[in-house]
Amino acid sequence: MEKVNISEKFSLFSDYWSPKIAGEINDMHVKFAKLKGEFIWHKHEHEDEMFLVIKGKLLIKFRDKDVHLEEGEFMIVPKGVEHLPIAKEEAHVIFFEPKSTVNTGEEVNERTVSKLPSL
Amino acid sequence: MEKVNISEKFSLFSDYWSPKIAGEINDMHVKFAKLKGEFIWHKHEHEDEMFLVIKGKLLIKFRDKDVHLEEGEFMIVPKGVEHLPIAKEEAHVIFFEPKSTVNTGEEVNERTVSKLPSL
Repeated sequence: MEKVNISEKFSLFSDYWSPKIAGEINDMHVKFAKLKGEFIWHKHEHEDEMFLVIKGKLLIKFRDKDVHLEEGEFMIVPKGVEHLPIAKEEAHVIFFEPKSTVNTGEEVNERTVSKLPSL
Repeated sequence: MEKVNISEKFSLFSDYWSPKIAGEINDMHVKFAKLKGEFIWHKHEHEDEMFLVIKGKLLIKFRDKDVHLEEGEFMIVPKGVEHLPIAKEEAHVIFFEPKSTVNTGEEVNERTVSKLPSL
């Protein structure tokens, strides 16, 4: 049972789109990821997903609108809603989502990360 | 489905120890609270509880140690563990915890808030 310093944890890795587990709250995971570039359109059939921007900017595209997140902002993408995260420059993002969540949602492809390391 | 600007949300209320719901992720709530002074010793039998410090400092006392949280730091207090949050000066804190969580845990007293408003 230790405290976590967010910026310290982000200094421990440099790969993109590869979430690391930084904590668990009952059946939920707290994940850290560095994002850069464009991800893929996907959705999570059963899981809501919270994106909290710690550093940089994150664009989340939806089929009907764009949402621009800045540092100190978050958004919860409800289950079943298609979305496409894009970070023009490197962004540091914390995810809160059920442990069952797979990064690429219903899609399974070369960007799927199925075994997440712990930070 | 809107984004949330954290500091904007904190500017909307001024009462202490009275969590407001700012989002839900499946069976989890995201709660905002301003803390000042000393709370009470309590535990949550079934719920882990994450404290994320947005502004100020938060001391969490445990029976065997003290943990000092600063801005940009968080801690997850596991279910069943007694704790006492203390904020010497005003602190802004985001909580992530199961919807079933009651602020005073197993204790029910004048500090219990059973119906939480939404922000």
